[in-house]
Amino acid sequence: MAKLIDGKQIAADIRVELRDQIKEWMEQGGNRAPHLTAILIGEDPASNTYVSNKMKAAADVGITSKTERYGADITEEQLLKRIEELNDDDSVDGILVQLPVPGHINERKVCNSVSCDKDVDGFNERNIGRLCLDMNTLIPCTPLGVQELIKRTEIETFGKNAVVVGRSKNVGMPIAMLLHADGRNDTCAMDATVTMCHRFTPPEELARFCRTADIIVTATGVPGLIKADMIKEGAAIIDVGITRVTDPVTGKNKLVGDVDFEEVRKVAGHITPVPGGVGPMTVAMLMKNTFIAAKNLARKKAEKEK
Amino acid sequence: MAKLIDGKQIAADIRVELRDQIKEWMEQGGNRAPHLTAILIGEDPASNTYVSNKMKAAADVGITSKTERYGADITEEQLLKRIEELNDDDSVDGILVQLPVPGHINERKVCNSVSCDKDVDGFNERNIGRLCLDMNTLIPCTPLGVQELIKRTEIETFGKNAVVVGRSKNVGMPIAMLLHADGRNDTCAMDATVTMCHRFTPPEELARFCRTADIIVTATGVPGLIKADMIKEGAAIIDVGITRVTDPVTGKNKLVGDVDFEEVRKVAGHITPVPGGVGPMTVAMLMKNTFIAAKNLARKKAEKEK
Repeated sequence: MAKLIDGKQIAADIRVELRDQIKEWMEQGGNRAPHLTAILIGEDPASNTYVSNKMKAAADVGITSKTERYGADITEEQLLKRIEELNDDDSVDGILVQLPVPGHINERKVCNSVSCDKDVDGFNERNIGRLCLDMNTLIPCTPLGVQELIKRTEIETFGKNAVVVGRSKNVGMPIAMLLHADGRNDTCAMDATVTMCHRFTPPEELARFCRTADIIVTATGVPGLIKADMIKEGAAIIDVGITRVTDPVTGKNKLVGDVDFEEVRKVAGHITPVPGGVGPMTVAMLMKNTFIAAKNLARKKAEKEK
Repeated sequence: MAKLIDGKQIAADIRVELRDQIKEWMEQGGNRAPHLTAILIGEDPASNTYVSNKMKAAADVGITSKTERYGADITEEQLLKRIEELNDDDSVDGILVQLPVPGHINERKVCNSVSCDKDVDGFNERNIGRLCLDMNTLIPCTPLGVQELIKRTEIETFGKNAVVVGRSKNVGMPIAMLLHADGRNDTCAMDATVTMCHRFTPPEELARFCRTADIIVTATGVPGLIKADMIKEGAAIIDVGITRVTDPVTGKNKLVGDVDFEEVRKVAGHITPVPGGVGPMTVAMLMKNTFIAAKNLARKKAEKEK
């Protein structure tokens, strides 16, 4: 039976560590608390919940935060102008624009408008470029959380076979980058041989690649895609998928991942549950990124004042 | 016996097409010839040859060019200042800094200093980010040449298995990006399932992945790495490797790729020779990028003047 990778517990551990580090950084370095500003547009309940959870986590680790709420009728120009102001505001370390933005606003333009230094989501195209070049940068939170889960669980990756299922730009692609690249570079990547599978990978080929994988990271939003007969005994299974389904027995809604959890856990060596696996890590990594941004900005400011 | 992918001929065809397109763009659009400026630092004979070949190709397609030569003692500051001037110079469309630069100059800084619009090598980190996000951008010439070879040879990639051997940031990584990503996006990527192999992929695993690959792109600089018993019958083999070796029989120097050409061609469906495969494509793609840059800059200028 697979060992459960308890993302909730690992994320809680990271938050305790961060709280201590931030406290020390403030007390010994004479720094103010790191500050995160979130921009929330419109009334989407899911977005509301996400932002609220992030702000709670911030408070928990000693990061001050503010949520700026705008109506869905905010213009792109107004939004970009506000981001520009936050970029220039020395009291703000991290800027988070909760996606999706309304259809009349260009999401890519918005992501690129956040200063690279304050881009705690890691979505600025320049930061993506730096990640793909293995350079020191703010890395998107979910891929970073997956990396952290793998490292803290001490799953071996060097020279191992990994399969990434799903090629999204926020999750699958950056995870493939962190899994395959050179561990000696800034991103502390994992030196695995990585196969990138996606919607156009034939099912029998997906199964074949998975069967020889030591690590599978799946991020598709297709419940039950990864089945027990696709798993090599002892493999590590990281499930980034999260889909709301109605339980046919109880009639209640529940969240499920891409993995047939009950069957796969009988074969795998490690497995993340959904919920409680990757999800909490994403929020913890946002806190980590905000602290990194605050430290970088404080150092830059000190250098400038010299 | 594999069909030879004649990169020299395909590159020549592309140059003819480009010459016609550039002529038409100048005559009908009232545009001046596209202009490429190359910066060559120091006395490295190989760099000298590369730049000289590029400039010959430019003249051939109707691109004007200039090579600026600097001693190996040029400072980083001087170089960056000169690039800045070229960025601002309306008579320059493409800027190429021949790599490597001397050790006292930060190569990454230099690549990033070239304006994204004139970055015909596609090495600016922002352009790399855009490539990895499947966005319209200037794509590094060798990966673009590999893509063009595959497309012009009508090798099927959609849902096929591809293996990329070598994870360099200038070649292997961007090729993996173009092979696996979504063909409906700006980069016209190829929708293959892609396995990224590298120096830490165990030899027996490399062989196993290659044996089920419909397409292998190798870019390692390890002669003879890819052998006939690693090839699926009918696979397409693109050899980006290029290494100078001494022939044990004749005692003469010659260029070889990563592939055991004579044996592999008996099994493969398509194969590129070395030299005369990917090499000429790289230069042709530099010309293509310069023309794209010129068109973009002319359009931007026209919009500004409106």
